[in-house]
Amino acid sequence: MSSHSANPQLNSKGELHHLLSIDGLPRGVIERILSTADSFINVAEREVKNVPLLRGKSVFNLFFENSTRTRTTFEIAARRLSADVFNLDIVRSSAAKGESLLDTINNLTAMQADAFVVRHATSGAPYLIARHTSRHAPHIHVINAGDGQHAHPTQGLLDAYTIRHYKKDFSNLTVAIVGDILHSRVARSDIHALTTLGVPEVRAVGPLTLLPTGLEQMGVRVCTKLDDGVRGADVIIMLRLQSERMRGTLLPSAAEYFANYGLTAKRLALAKPDAIVMHPGPMNRGVEIDSHVADGTASVILTQVTFGIAVRMAVLSIVSSSASMQ
Amino acid sequence: MSSHSANPQLNSKGELHHLLSIDGLPRGVIERILSTADSFINVAEREVKNVPLLRGKSVFNLFFENSTRTRTTFEIAARRLSADVFNLDIVRSSAAKGESLLDTINNLTAMQADAFVVRHATSGAPYLIARHTSRHAPHIHVINAGDGQHAHPTQGLLDAYTIRHYKKDFSNLTVAIVGDILHSRVARSDIHALTTLGVPEVRAVGPLTLLPTGLEQMGVRVCTKLDDGVRGADVIIMLRLQSERMRGTLLPSAAEYFANYGLTAKRLALAKPDAIVMHPGPMNRGVEIDSHVADGTASVILTQVTFGIAVRMAVLSIVSSSASMQ
Amino acid sequence: MSSHSANPQLNSKGELHHLLSIDGLPRGVIERILSTADSFINVAEREVKNVPLLRGKSVFNLFFENSTRTRTTFEIAARRLSADVFNLDIVRSSAAKGESLLDTINNLTAMQADAFVVRHATSGAPYLIARHTSRHAPHIHVINAGDGQHAHPTQGLLDAYTIRHYKKDFSNLTVAIVGDILHSRVARSDIHALTTLGVPEVRAVGPLTLLPTGLEQMGVRVCTKLDDGVRGADVIIMLRLQSERMRGTLLPSAAEYFANYGLTAKRLALAKPDAIVMHPGPMNRGVEIDSHVADGTASVILTQVTFGIAVRMAVLSIVSSSASMQ
Repeated sequence: MSSHSANPQLNSKGELHHLLSIDGLPRGVIERILSTADSFINVAEREVKNVPLLRGKSVFNLFFENSTRTRTTFEIAARRLSADVFNLDIVRSSAAKGESLLDTINNLTAMQADAFVVRHATSGAPYLIARHTSRHAPHIHVINAGDGQHAHPTQGLLDAYTIRHYKKDFSNLTVAIVGDILHSRVARSDIHALTTLGVPEVRAVGPLTLLPTGLEQMGVRVCTKLDDGVRGADVIIMLRLQSERMRGTLLPSAAEYFANYGLTAKRLALAKPDAIVMHPGPMNRGVEIDSHVADGTASVILTQVTFGIAVRMAVLSIVSSSASMQ
Repeated sequence: MSSHSANPQLNSKGELHHLLSIDGLPRGVIERILSTADSFINVAEREVKNVPLLRGKSVFNLFFENSTRTRTTFEIAARRLSADVFNLDIVRSSAAKGESLLDTINNLTAMQADAFVVRHATSGAPYLIARHTSRHAPHIHVINAGDGQHAHPTQGLLDAYTIRHYKKDFSNLTVAIVGDILHSRVARSDIHALTTLGVPEVRAVGPLTLLPTGLEQMGVRVCTKLDDGVRGADVIIMLRLQSERMRGTLLPSAAEYFANYGLTAKRLALAKPDAIVMHPGPMNRGVEIDSHVADGTASVILTQVTFGIAVRMAVLSIVSSSASMQ
Repeated sequence: MSSHSANPQLNSKGELHHLLSIDGLPRGVIERILSTADSFINVAEREVKNVPLLRGKSVFNLFFENSTRTRTTFEIAARRLSADVFNLDIVRSSAAKGESLLDTINNLTAMQADAFVVRHATSGAPYLIARHTSRHAPHIHVINAGDGQHAHPTQGLLDAYTIRHYKKDFSNLTVAIVGDILHSRVARSDIHALTTLGVPEVRAVGPLTLLPTGLEQMGVRVCTKLDDGVRGADVIIMLRLQSERMRGTLLPSAAEYFANYGLTAKRLALAKPDAIVMHPGPMNRGVEIDSHVADGTASVILTQVTFGIAVRMAVLSIVSSSASMQ
């Protein structure tokens, strides 16, 4: 679709240099990440879990928005690759003293960072950073760890990895993504990953108030009833309902949400007998998912977490082996 | 008293797998921890302080209650053993987003943790975690770093280690524990450690309002007057008076507490001439202890801190060498 | 001026044992730090940036005042030297429970620290710590990372390093330091460094309300007009205007400050054609410095950050190789 030079994630050789979004990533790049992750799954099972691929490299975790869990998985991934990891308490830092985002980035670049892992409440912030470093410090890699309501590409990739692990082949699958699609960067990244990998039927399931427009153009089938959404599905991805939605005007109440969109064993029975249930965490038990399902045999929710470390190791090692931008 | 299978800290071979409480620990297990700590005291004096016993292992510090000092000593201990240590800012994490304790533990388990060091304001929280991991992830070790008013086993062990260092033999000692016994997890762990190790006279000294019932059944002599408590003692363990007690209804005032239960040089003179004074820190100078005593020749308070690192290295290395639970 | 025994930074052999202030440091010591930093600049350009000079040593970052940036540069420096670095969340620690500063230091000493990097809001706090450790734990090194309005010696050293890099020789230079000299520990450290290194003309430039008395006695020329201050200068060091000054009674407004003391391209043109512009960061663009200057060809502001890591590596390695105090 876009030429290499126009894709801000790829260098002039078409190699992945930043990971900003799954939107626009060639299928071959995604597949290489998934197969590289395979090799790191085995590392984690060894007595010593560390490999020296990033020895001497400095990875800076820049979490402008708190997320202990995602930050920790990136820290584990980078340290298993033997990188030096620096966690910046960026919320209490110069940014709070009124320094601009790019001045902060310039300073950290001058500290000889090799990669930035960025979580930011504003959609597009990692793009702004990558565009800036590509011009001024072309050896630096930027990994988007979630930006606003835009993208969470490593979550999309680990979801794709998990599905491939259990279902082997994407070409016959029906995947239902259920919940607050409108505000979900996870949903957006999942849709791009799955449609690029050739999943023939991706369904977005939720109340009309929480469904964005334009889904059909992305190749997604819209369902406003949960029963329609899960019927015959191979994979059900439940999204976390943010607590601010429960108090908001878009939804009547958490209890009513559960009655209509909570995944129960009875509803799960409408899916394929070997269907798997996924969730990006943290779960709201009794809101979007019933505990019997969350802890049941169809649930692969904790396996997602384990796979997430291998996928993040894959992303960090692949970008680190790419040539400089431009 | 309890069979191995009933003791949640021991595996089926009777090896220490978790450290949750000194209550119920066989004397041989305690003695093995103390003698293992001996070997690490020497490590700390070497030019390079690190040994590779836990290389490739991931130790997660889960401090649901802040304690920079205890967290740091565990971090030092684990890093001296070459473990990868992850400090989770758990207070600002998913737990705060309403996730249950066991869902948090499940997620960290899925990140391939090898050990959890847990501080929690609720008594019993480390037991809940250990019972859960023993069932679902039997290779994981849980170390209690202080739970509510229940137990602080590594403090009890380092106190026992310190006493053994200075007094060589437990079998002739009189040990006075002075202060707010009622609310003190340190006192409880000290009492279990010292009675198990054969100290013939353990005294609990404090105002009636701060003494729990049932001390006599634990083999402890109760004294409500400080002079009676310290007279002839070999060891005096002063407890920190929590500031909330000073404001509370259980005590008239900090000044009156000091007048009745503060350890001064004059009162210390009632103890044996070679008596040692201990304190778990941080001290309230002028409340439970006079500065002349805190900084005097009888004080071994800072030595306790140094020994605490060796004792925590011993605990981490011993549990790590045990077989999986069940 | 002062004999070695009277200088709290030097041991009896005249070696640098603590770094507390540039005031009183012999020129030879400063020059050794700068030349040692040279050797670390090359390290940073290697594929693997770490050297084993501090392997097995424990460096404790004690930031009683938040500064993510300075803390991170010290952490990078110490880890590049292979030290074990412990970041203490000292603001949330025992200090907050009412423990005295020296009791905190005693405890960390008992944890077998080898060096303390101290940032404190109170002028003199690192001296108090160094005097204490020199007596009780003479192997420990104290590095001042900024104390109140007193000193920020590593900033002074990195500024001197930067100037030497671009200008080669100090003996013919005119250096203008512009802004809130009165409250600036950076200005004080810069003045001591530059006069000791033989800079013939150091100018302090700012409004009378922000200039301390006694500058002339330090060999500094006072200018209350920016044009006079920058005319013919080889080096211009702009200071950050603290936001509390902008709201305060010492200054009318940020806009008026910029009009009188903000460095613009037009004013920079009054300096030597090859003048360099420096700033300790974080910058207030449009307050003390115009963006065209901050991002222009004369600016070496980001290079200062890079050099700062090499200078901090030099300080840590030099103090670590000194003999014990006394």
